[in-house]
Amino acid sequence: MTPSINFTPGPSQLYFTVEAHIRQAFKDGIPSLSHRSKNFEIISKEATNGLRELLNIPSGYHLYFTGSANEIWERIIQNLVEEQSFHLVNGAFSKRFYEIAGLLNKAPKKIEAENGKGFADVQVPSGTELIALTHNETSTGVSLPLDFLHHFRDKYPDALIAVDAVSSMPYPDFDYSKFDSVFFSVQKGFGLPAGLGVWIVNERCIAKAEHLLSKGISIGSYHSIPSLHAHAIKNQTPETPNVLSIYVLAKVVQDMLRRGTQTIRRETDYKAAILYHGLESNNFARPFVSDQTFQSKTVVVADCGDHTMKITDYLISKGMQPGDGYGSAKKSQLRFANFPTHSKEQFELLVDSLTAYQG
Amino acid sequence: MTPSINFTPGPSQLYFTVEAHIRQAFKDGIPSLSHRSKNFEIISKEATNGLRELLNIPSGYHLYFTGSANEIWERIIQNLVEEQSFHLVNGAFSKRFYEIAGLLNKAPKKIEAENGKGFADVQVPSGTELIALTHNETSTGVSLPLDFLHHFRDKYPDALIAVDAVSSMPYPDFDYSKFDSVFFSVQKGFGLPAGLGVWIVNERCIAKAEHLLSKGISIGSYHSIPSLHAHAIKNQTPETPNVLSIYVLAKVVQDMLRRGTQTIRRETDYKAAILYHGLESNNFARPFVSDQTFQSKTVVVADCGDHTMKITDYLISKGMQPGDGYGSAKKSQLRFANFPTHSKEQFELLVDSLTAYQG
Repeated sequence: MTPSINFTPGPSQLYFTVEAHIRQAFKDGIPSLSHRSKNFEIISKEATNGLRELLNIPSGYHLYFTGSANEIWERIIQNLVEEQSFHLVNGAFSKRFYEIAGLLNKAPKKIEAENGKGFADVQVPSGTELIALTHNETSTGVSLPLDFLHHFRDKYPDALIAVDAVSSMPYPDFDYSKFDSVFFSVQKGFGLPAGLGVWIVNERCIAKAEHLLSKGISIGSYHSIPSLHAHAIKNQTPETPNVLSIYVLAKVVQDMLRRGTQTIRRETDYKAAILYHGLESNNFARPFVSDQTFQSKTVVVADCGDHTMKITDYLISKGMQPGDGYGSAKKSQLRFANFPTHSKEQFELLVDSLTAYQG
Repeated sequence: MTPSINFTPGPSQLYFTVEAHIRQAFKDGIPSLSHRSKNFEIISKEATNGLRELLNIPSGYHLYFTGSANEIWERIIQNLVEEQSFHLVNGAFSKRFYEIAGLLNKAPKKIEAENGKGFADVQVPSGTELIALTHNETSTGVSLPLDFLHHFRDKYPDALIAVDAVSSMPYPDFDYSKFDSVFFSVQKGFGLPAGLGVWIVNERCIAKAEHLLSKGISIGSYHSIPSLHAHAIKNQTPETPNVLSIYVLAKVVQDMLRRGTQTIRRETDYKAAILYHGLESNNFARPFVSDQTFQSKTVVVADCGDHTMKITDYLISKGMQPGDGYGSAKKSQLRFANFPTHSKEQFELLVDSLTAYQG
C-alpha cells in the first residue's frame, strides 16, 4: 500500500489541486501549446503576477523560470560573481552552493556551522561580491531567522545577497529589499511535480551580469540574466520551457491566494508547533535542532536513533510516509515536511501517532 | 474550437498515449516520487534502456537527462570544446548552436548555407575540436542526408562529432559509430509535454570533458559530463529532474517499441511522400526545400506566399492546425510536423484538404 500522506521534504506530497489542474490542462491543449504563443504569455504572466502577489515581491524584482533550483545555483555564480562569493554553510545544500562556485572556477569562501546549528556573528570577508544564504537547510532542518537574513544588507551594502528558499517558500515573510536574489523550486512548498525552478532577481543583479559581460567574462548563454530578462519582459522564456509546470504553478498560486498567505503562514506555524511540542516530550524521537531560534517551520527533523526504522514502519502502517534523514543521517533521523498541502488534521494524526509509538 | 490535429513542429501534438500514462502516473504516486528512490532508478533505467533499443544505440554510448535541448547546446560546448568548434549553419537553430559557442567565449567557425539549402563539399578547418551538425533544421525543413552526416568521421577522425536530432528523432537510422554525441528533446517526435532533453555521449566525450577539467577549464557544475555520468551509471540524476517526464518517456518508448521502429520509419516515409507529392502539384503551397535530397521527412515546410493566412484558416476550419513559418517566414510559409503520433489518415486528410483548397 502506498501511504496516503507523504511527509518527505521533496519531491513532496502534491498540492491537493494539482491533479485536477493537470486534467484541465490536457482538456485545454496546454501540453502542446507553443511557448511562442499569446496563450503561453498569458499563462506565464499569470504565474509571475500570482507569485508577486502571494510572496509580496516588490517592483524592480523580476521572475525567471529555469529547469531546477540546482540550475539557479550555477546561474547565480555565473552571472553575479567575478571572483569571490561567500557562503554560510550548515548542511549539504548550502555546501553544494559553495562547491558549485569552485567548480565554476571562482574563489568562494565560507563559514561553516555544525549540522543542526545556525550562525551567531558572521564576518563577511572583504572582497565578497555575493553573500549566499540558505534560508532553510533541507538536509538538517535548520532555518536562519528573518532578522539574521535581513541584517546583512545594512552591514554589507556593497555585496549582492542571494537567498536559497527552496524548502521554505511560500512560507517566509521576506523583506525583499534586503535581498538581491531569491530562488526556489516548485516540488517542495508549492507541491508541484519536479522540473521547474523560479529565480527572482533585482536590477542590481541585471547590472552585475551586464558588467561581467562587458568585461568579456562568459555568463552563460540562453539562461544568462540578460537573455532570461529579454524574454521575461515579454512573458516568454529563451528555450522551450516546462510549459505544463508553469501552467500548474499559475493555478496553484491562484488556489493559495484564495486561501491567503496569512492563513498558510498561520497554519504552518500551528502544524510546526504541535510537532515540535510532541517531539519535545517524546522518548524515541527528539528534535534534531535543539535551539528553537533555528528550528525550521517547514522541514522538521527528528533524531530517532535506533528507532528510526521502526518508527518509519509504524508511521507507514498508519498511512504516513516520513522522509528519510539526509545522507549519513539516513538511519538515525526522520524528516517531516510541513508544506501548505499538509493539513492540520494530517499533522495532528502524525503527532498523535508519534506519541502513541512505544518502541 | 481547438483543432483536433496539431501539425506544429513543437511543442507538437502529444503522442496519443501520453494522457493515459500521466493519469496512471498520478495513480502510482510518480509526481511525488523521490529521485533518490529505487523506484525512480527503475523508471530511469526503463527510459534509457528503451531508448537504446528503439534508437539502436550501441554500448559505449551513455544517456543523460537535461532540462532542454537548448541546455545541451551549452553543455556540449562547455564540456567538449576548449577553443574551436565548427558549425554547419543553415537556419535559425543550427545558427543558435554556433552563437552559443561564442557566448561561452570559444572561437567557433562556421560554414553557412542559405535557408532551404543543404551543403555540398564541406572543408572543416584545422584545429576543429568538434563538428556541430544539425540533422533536421526545424526552421526551414532541411534535413542533411545520413551519408553526408556519416562521412565526417572518416575524413576528420580527430574531431568530435555532435548531431542535433531535435526534430527528427526517433525517425533517423543513425550509425552511431560515426558520431560522438547526439541529442534531442521530448516535445517533438516523442510527443511529450516540453521540459526534458536527452543527451547521448560516448567515451570520447567523457575523456574530452575530463581532459578539459584536468587543464583547469570549468566544464560547469551539476550538469558537467563527469557529474551527469557519475549519476547516470546509477540510473540517477545530479539534480531533482523532471521525474514525471522521464516516466512518460519510458512508457511512450515502450509503446513505440511495440509498434516497431521500422513501422514508424515506413509510416513517416509514406506520410512525407504523400505530402510532398501533394505540394508538388499544388498551385498555392509549394515545397520550400526544392532539392529532394534535403527535404526533411519529419518537418515539411511549404511556401504559401500570400495564401499563408487563408490556407491556415482553411485548415483550421477542417480541424487541423498547421505550424507557422519560422521567424521572418511566418507570413509566407507553413510547417507540418510528421511525427509518430500523426496517423496516415491524418496526413491523408491534410493532403486532400490542401488539394481541395482553391484560393
